[in-house]
Amino acid sequence: MEQVSANKAFGGTQGVYRHASLSTGTDMTFSVYVPPHKDGEKLPVVWYLSGLTCTHANVTEKGEYRQACADLGLIFVAPDTSPRGEGVADDPAGAYDFGLGAGFYVDASQPPYAAHYAMWTYVTEEVPALMAEHFPVDMARQGITGHSMGGHGALTIGLTHADRFKSVSAFAPIVAPGQVPWGQKALAGYLGEDRALWRRHDAVALIEDGARVPALLVDQGEADSFLAEQLRPELLRDACGKAGIDLTLRLQPGYDHSYYFISTFMADHLRWHAARLA
Amino acid sequence: MEQVSANKAFGGTQGVYRHASLSTGTDMTFSVYVPPHKDGEKLPVVWYLSGLTCTHANVTEKGEYRQACADLGLIFVAPDTSPRGEGVADDPAGAYDFGLGAGFYVDASQPPYAAHYAMWTYVTEEVPALMAEHFPVDMARQGITGHSMGGHGALTIGLTHADRFKSVSAFAPIVAPGQVPWGQKALAGYLGEDRALWRRHDAVALIEDGARVPALLVDQGEADSFLAEQLRPELLRDACGKAGIDLTLRLQPGYDHSYYFISTFMADHLRWHAARLA
Repeated sequence: MEQVSANKAFGGTQGVYRHASLSTGTDMTFSVYVPPHKDGEKLPVVWYLSGLTCTHANVTEKGEYRQACADLGLIFVAPDTSPRGEGVADDPAGAYDFGLGAGFYVDASQPPYAAHYAMWTYVTEEVPALMAEHFPVDMARQGITGHSMGGHGALTIGLTHADRFKSVSAFAPIVAPGQVPWGQKALAGYLGEDRALWRRHDAVALIEDGARVPALLVDQGEADSFLAEQLRPELLRDACGKAGIDLTLRLQPGYDHSYYFISTFMADHLRWHAARLA
Repeated sequence: MEQVSANKAFGGTQGVYRHASLSTGTDMTFSVYVPPHKDGEKLPVVWYLSGLTCTHANVTEKGEYRQACADLGLIFVAPDTSPRGEGVADDPAGAYDFGLGAGFYVDASQPPYAAHYAMWTYVTEEVPALMAEHFPVDMARQGITGHSMGGHGALTIGLTHADRFKSVSAFAPIVAPGQVPWGQKALAGYLGEDRALWRRHDAVALIEDGARVPALLVDQGEADSFLAEQLRPELLRDACGKAGIDLTLRLQPGYDHSYYFISTFMADHLRWHAARLA
């Protein structure tokens, strides 16, 4: 693992790291913020999964998480959203919502994507191993969040690994990819047409099929242009209601889908995670 | 004046605006954050002048000022660093430290730069008129800050218009452009070789020549790679010492020249301004 950059920020270190990934067969880049801490101290970690078109850099530059992480003693890790580089298949038409920048946090089974798109394994196994080895993380205290496609990733990974993540939240997540255009395109493209196989990568379907977490925090901007067609938080509200999951769903008037929205509520989410990771 | 974008953030509005500038003879773009406020209320404003290579966008995306502005009730305005567009002369060699993105907040007298590089007039007259007309600003309560070349701009404008700016601060400013390579190149290129004419655009020289403000706050990273050759805060410390200006100069161990440094101390600066603009 190679350190691409390290900048002191809010008393800690914002780093960017590159490594040859076994999961994806490509070089991958991720960022980690380590807040000020005592020598030898192990800290809880919050995972942040990014949305369509993003790399680690978007949240690292615009997420405004470092002040809260420094105050709360949280490590913050932000992986990339897809494999990249020579030989990595992209959307045939170069669309923004599939292929590069749009891995949807699944292990693709379909050619040509199966060759490199193993983002589920990458995020749930390979980066955790790197985190445990190279950073002062208490791996018994992990939380996960994300935005849009990354909110989908956070919810599905958090629901699947409820033993591992003590806290799960999301910003404007795709809650039911099997029922919306972005998700239908991605899951068909990566996993094939058998919709039964999609259910493990659909938060609402996972809950319907019995997955449980104690609580969820979701913020959603009401002026988000993707709200009605792609995000549909009411589907998550209904599923959580039936399942008895304590969902805090906050519809935020006037907020859109951008990092101006995310950064506004980032500290709230980090406090929510910190309370559950204490 | 055209609104390029408006995003709700921290309860207020982050806007970006474009207008045909009379000062520069080009279209110019700047950003303004207006925090939540009561109808009819007039708010103090902090000006932020950016450094070499930047546009309004760098601080708007990476400055992390909105939370503090919302808490403190401050408007935050960030102009561009030079004229841009067809017909605007750049550095002959395309260097980053002169020409586009490097206007140094002076009105150029030398061809071909005199045609468009009127950043002093733009920042001290034209944008203030737009601010007074279009935003809920109390123009009797203005502060100014900036980074690097923009720190130079903040100090020179703040010292020259001490009646207008009740608070002046800077992040890693070029304090004495007449004594360092960046400034010598820029001032010679824009103003010509008569060094007497440079002194009005050199904070240390202005202070030596009698300009006064009650107090200054300057943060400077000790790991800043430009510290020894280009920034030289000790020259400002010496000038303020002789002039009886209450300079708070904080050397910050481990911090570099990036927005990771700026964002870390941004809220401190905004609190400092707010206290003087109350």
